[in-house]
Amino acid sequence: MPAFAKRMSQVRRSFIREILKVTADPSIISFAGGLPKPDLFPTGPMADAAARVLAENGPAALQYSVTEGEPALREWIAARYKAKKNLDIDPAHILVTNGSQQSLDLLGKVFLDPGDLVGVELPGYIGAIQAFSIFEPAFAGVPLGPEGPDLDRLTEVVLSRRAKMFYAVPNFQNPSGLTYSLAARRAVAEILRMSDTVFVEDDPYGELRFFGEPLPPVTSFLTQDAYLLGTFSKIAAPGLRLGWVVATPDTLAKLVTAKQASDLHCSTLVQRILIQFLADNDLDAHIATIRAVYGAQRDLMIERIKAEFPAEVTCTEPEGGMFLWVTLPEGCSAFALFDLCIKEKVAFVPGGPFFVDGGGERTLRLNFSNADPERIAEGIARMGKGIKTLLARPGCASGS
Amino acid sequence: MPAFAKRMSQVRRSFIREILKVTADPSIISFAGGLPKPDLFPTGPMADAAARVLAENGPAALQYSVTEGEPALREWIAARYKAKKNLDIDPAHILVTNGSQQSLDLLGKVFLDPGDLVGVELPGYIGAIQAFSIFEPAFAGVPLGPEGPDLDRLTEVVLSRRAKMFYAVPNFQNPSGLTYSLAARRAVAEILRMSDTVFVEDDPYGELRFFGEPLPPVTSFLTQDAYLLGTFSKIAAPGLRLGWVVATPDTLAKLVTAKQASDLHCSTLVQRILIQFLADNDLDAHIATIRAVYGAQRDLMIERIKAEFPAEVTCTEPEGGMFLWVTLPEGCSAFALFDLCIKEKVAFVPGGPFFVDGGGERTLRLNFSNADPERIAEGIARMGKGIKTLLARPGCASGS
Repeated sequence: MPAFAKRMSQVRRSFIREILKVTADPSIISFAGGLPKPDLFPTGPMADAAARVLAENGPAALQYSVTEGEPALREWIAARYKAKKNLDIDPAHILVTNGSQQSLDLLGKVFLDPGDLVGVELPGYIGAIQAFSIFEPAFAGVPLGPEGPDLDRLTEVVLSRRAKMFYAVPNFQNPSGLTYSLAARRAVAEILRMSDTVFVEDDPYGELRFFGEPLPPVTSFLTQDAYLLGTFSKIAAPGLRLGWVVATPDTLAKLVTAKQASDLHCSTLVQRILIQFLADNDLDAHIATIRAVYGAQRDLMIERIKAEFPAEVTCTEPEGGMFLWVTLPEGCSAFALFDLCIKEKVAFVPGGPFFVDGGGERTLRLNFSNADPERIAEGIARMGKGIKTLLARPGCASGS
Repeated sequence: MPAFAKRMSQVRRSFIREILKVTADPSIISFAGGLPKPDLFPTGPMADAAARVLAENGPAALQYSVTEGEPALREWIAARYKAKKNLDIDPAHILVTNGSQQSLDLLGKVFLDPGDLVGVELPGYIGAIQAFSIFEPAFAGVPLGPEGPDLDRLTEVVLSRRAKMFYAVPNFQNPSGLTYSLAARRAVAEILRMSDTVFVEDDPYGELRFFGEPLPPVTSFLTQDAYLLGTFSKIAAPGLRLGWVVATPDTLAKLVTAKQASDLHCSTLVQRILIQFLADNDLDAHIATIRAVYGAQRDLMIERIKAEFPAEVTCTEPEGGMFLWVTLPEGCSAFALFDLCIKEKVAFVPGGPFFVDGGGERTLRLNFSNADPERIAEGIARMGKGIKTLLARPGCASGS
């Protein structure tokens, strides 16, 4: 048997995707996944779009296409940046990818040599950590607080340790639900401006704001190379597997070469169905529906947590997105709680794996977008039982 | 501006895709691309399949899915190996990918460390060379003849130089159109059996045989790790971007991890549309139509070449696939011919870039699947003019 490449020894299978296998049992109420609510998917409009695309220009929709992505889709993305964020982005600077995950893979391919330092938030998005791990970097964690990242630590990682890359999710972050304040965005940009660090700003949830004013991306305060990632997974449907990366021309050329080598181009058919869907429907009205439903589910989950969990258990109260972040009292283990909760038929993701530097043992992530209100109320009640059992253990206060 | 990763200095943009931009002018008759004929795409049946999928189970078709690929699609692929080649393949050993190109990327990720030796055919498939280049291997060419690869050279590369990987396209190879004989398949397997070399057998064109008997894959003579690649691009439609790799369980687990890190999974929607299309239609009848059309176009192209090209210009006469391989007299340059032919409004791909060891200056690739018969006849006549101009040059016989 031939040896696997060295890079594979660094990469773990996604812990979350392994948990999702456990939760396939429908009697388990799962807050573990990061799944959108499927009954909100625009199934009928997508069917209409598919029918039109195949009837009006079927052969072209089934043929090979350009690596950069369908021109009409790149133009739509650029126009939306202008309309929603007043950003002037040239469609020629956009590469269409198989969801944000592929944007991360391609940025890793193009920028990361083995041993390069990559700054990530603590807790940080596991999919990004996994994507970058393939390229054998070292990771440095930057703790995330209610206003944004720890600026002293960011200064150390970016300026003293000269990180090659800093990856951030400033809006309703996965897993914490936290959002960078406007002041934090400016401060982060100020640190990055003094560096050669590649800044990767991922924004899968930005359009899912329930209240408060949208904030400009950190990238908008930068003049240097920075990469803005987006996806249709949360505003249209994740099963399309379509996202994008905005890059400067030199880097875009490299990303296109890497994309050619990786899979030639994204599905022509699915890109054209999406373009037709976007042309024929009011996306803002659709997003308003998603926001209303997710916002109500967030409110309910927080309300039930306050009713069912002991007061020493805290949680974030995000302004948008899909996740809450729960912190147990000192010394309690979220993995121990996971085992107790599976017996109660409720699941979540323990927070530890989100910390590249270790730690986070008493934290956990809850998804509020996927489950119905009845299941949210019942699931939080079941979790409350598990937490009370855990906190009654003498060991809980003294370490896991 | 931050530095790009070292790996990117090895990777060239696809020469063919650059040529395709030149040939976007519809007045140019192009034999350059590797495009299937779009009027043969099953547009209506795909529209029916899309309508059914979205009507009957739309939300699931638009949701996230498993990395391995939709179970029904993996089962279909395994059943077809049994029906067509009498191979017993467990669906659990199949990973669905974004076309063969992604299978190559994932195999490179999983197996290739910088400096590893990869054997490729001379001429060899450019997409594979590009995919593997990302992982910084060294390449060793194995010349391809009418019966198969040069076995002495293969022995040297695989056994003496202990290549980490050998990549082959035994059926109607791209770019040459050549096919390994049964004896060559056995001999290649015998050499590989004595080695730890990872054997990657790519078979995009195997179902497009115009005459003669199908031959068993080289992999069927092996008991060790070997990887069989397939694609729906040539038998259904390339715009779906769906292919697969068959692997042993340990390697499949690594490939799944690499796929998770690369893009989570292939589009759920397009996988389900394809499954429905395959369930509701007679694929063999569809492939028979493709074979009949491509076979007739191949016959016509060879007939017109014999009529229009000087006798000292030779070409392969493939039993299937999409390509012919033309060899000019000694000393003539296919790049010089390309310039002459673009003036005549006809395009092809010069052969040089298909040779990892250099050489091939007087060879070129012609695609016969995409153009209509009228354009094939007219394009070969135009090329004949260009060739006669080239051969009349005193320099042609003495080097380019």
